[in-house]
Amino acid sequence: MKKNIAIIGYGGMGWWHGDYLKKSDVCNLLGVWDINPDRLVIARNEGINTYSSLEELLGDDRLDIVTVATPNDIHKELIIKVLESGKNAISEKPVTLCSEDLQEMFDASNRTGKLFTVHQNRRWDCDFLAMKQVYESGVLGEVFNIESRVHGSRGIPGDWRGMKQYGGGMMLDWGVHIIDQMLLMVPSKIKKVYCQFDHVTNYEVDDGFRLTLNFENGVRAYLEVGTSNFINLPRWYMQGENGTAVINDFSCEGKIVCVENWDEKDVVPVRTAAGLTKTMAPRKDDTIKTHEIPQITSDVHDFYRNVAKAVDGIESQLITHPQLMRVMKLMEACAKSDETGMPVDFE
Amino acid sequence: MKKNIAIIGYGGMGWWHGDYLKKSDVCNLLGVWDINPDRLVIARNEGINTYSSLEELLGDDRLDIVTVATPNDIHKELIIKVLESGKNAISEKPVTLCSEDLQEMFDASNRTGKLFTVHQNRRWDCDFLAMKQVYESGVLGEVFNIESRVHGSRGIPGDWRGMKQYGGGMMLDWGVHIIDQMLLMVPSKIKKVYCQFDHVTNYEVDDGFRLTLNFENGVRAYLEVGTSNFINLPRWYMQGENGTAVINDFSCEGKIVCVENWDEKDVVPVRTAAGLTKTMAPRKDDTIKTHEIPQITSDVHDFYRNVAKAVDGIESQLITHPQLMRVMKLMEACAKSDETGMPVDFE
Repeated sequence: MKKNIAIIGYGGMGWWHGDYLKKSDVCNLLGVWDINPDRLVIARNEGINTYSSLEELLGDDRLDIVTVATPNDIHKELIIKVLESGKNAISEKPVTLCSEDLQEMFDASNRTGKLFTVHQNRRWDCDFLAMKQVYESGVLGEVFNIESRVHGSRGIPGDWRGMKQYGGGMMLDWGVHIIDQMLLMVPSKIKKVYCQFDHVTNYEVDDGFRLTLNFENGVRAYLEVGTSNFINLPRWYMQGENGTAVINDFSCEGKIVCVENWDEKDVVPVRTAAGLTKTMAPRKDDTIKTHEIPQITSDVHDFYRNVAKAVDGIESQLITHPQLMRVMKLMEACAKSDETGMPVDFE
Repeated sequence: MKKNIAIIGYGGMGWWHGDYLKKSDVCNLLGVWDINPDRLVIARNEGINTYSSLEELLGDDRLDIVTVATPNDIHKELIIKVLESGKNAISEKPVTLCSEDLQEMFDASNRTGKLFTVHQNRRWDCDFLAMKQVYESGVLGEVFNIESRVHGSRGIPGDWRGMKQYGGGMMLDWGVHIIDQMLLMVPSKIKKVYCQFDHVTNYEVDDGFRLTLNFENGVRAYLEVGTSNFINLPRWYMQGENGTAVINDFSCEGKIVCVENWDEKDVVPVRTAAGLTKTMAPRKDDTIKTHEIPQITSDVHDFYRNVAKAVDGIESQLITHPQLMRVMKLMEACAKSDETGMPVDFE
């Protein structure tokens, strides 16, 4: 049976949830509430029922699930209220601003026996799923380096996302996604975390970061978010002993190049203005083979499908508390590394 | 008047010097010597005179300059012999394996009053000169990030370049070039050095490295050499507050993209499989302006032209002892950082 759901917060992401939930095969959207009356007018104009207060929403006993899509600093307070009103709760990401707050949210979920999870929607992005498949397929041989970059050129949004007290900054906004993806991709403990934050357009919060993770299994991962990049570097770059894979952008355009024949004869050196190089000369075509990037289809509706089944106890929740806590603690290690200028031991 | 010159070591780079010196407008190539008689046969077949021994070469009083192009571990011994025989001396790069050895070479130069310099030929590479011009032109606004990468896919050469005792490894082979270039580009002290070496195809020496330099003027530089890269990332990537410049390869193909209008209206979000993003959406064409990469011509013969004039005292030597020592000490700091896993304070 379909689950009845409501949304708290009808800004950018609240609208996104509403748009999806109107079409959902597992949820009935009963209504939304926002502290800003203008947003409620917008919702009603889109044919969505609105609540007149938070209390009215929390008192609606028909509701199975409530999604919280407000600024980050009030997720905790609202999620705990939702759980204590006897409903299952979904938070937008980043779930909250520190691991102590996250633990309080877990405690409320355990105390009330209600499900609590987070909308880590970018687990369904095809670029990530394609690269994860490349990693797991072994086509590159033993992988030793994975680089994940997200580049824009507008600085950070001019609203609460630029303010520390509301949980602004690119580490919390995009870092939380690309860290979550990397931890899902590489099944290994992390030994060391080294991170430098950028402050090109904003001093209060980071407007980008550069993060190196050294995993116990030998993989080195590099994660970068930039908002002053007028030319983008590739979204993904992965190296194994036998080949390299690249995905250039969210549309998954890219390629895989693997060695076919190590013993290349008669290497033609590259002649630069001031010298020759054989070491850095491109390989001849008959020593390499180019493969396509796997084309993946995904459906982000699977997030709500999983939540609905998890509420009924017939499936485990996909986005788990230990996963959420690991990402949060890693973001805290990044902040510590940036502050001290030193690598931080982890796990 | 043209300077008389000889070459010790007629391998790959010795051949390169011979080929250039045959056409030089400032030097007469009097001959070469190599410990391997086969190389001498090759030289004679190319019409180049050969010496029968090192002693014969060092005893040739007609010589003004001797270029040493042997494996790296014997540069010091040979350069000191050349200087003590009353001749000016040029060493191939990397000049030697540690700063103590380099100081001994400087001491011999000072003691004998003879010029000693190093063939840092990649100061004349057009990709470097173009990027240096972009940096200095101010077209990007205040520059805060410079990335310099050199990628190949053949591992390191199978000869002495893979052995520690002969001064092998990519830090000494290519690192010495791209570090020298970066130090010329950014006129500031370095505060911090963080480096990790790669050992993908070779455990004895590094077959690549990833180096972050934090300069006192706020610039962060990232230098990377890789020999297991079957797809190359751009040779240069530079970010300023107002734009980004990229050079893709040694042939200087690339572009500069600068902002024309910060206040972009009606941003069209990028829709990925699992979400929307305005922050990372590409800018519309009317808010940016694309410039060409400056096309630079350079002539690596200027290296020998400068040495000839410096021998006559009418020009300062371009590649100076303090510059050479700074690069050597920085490479030592990289090794220390890799060994300890920690950033190293510098200068």
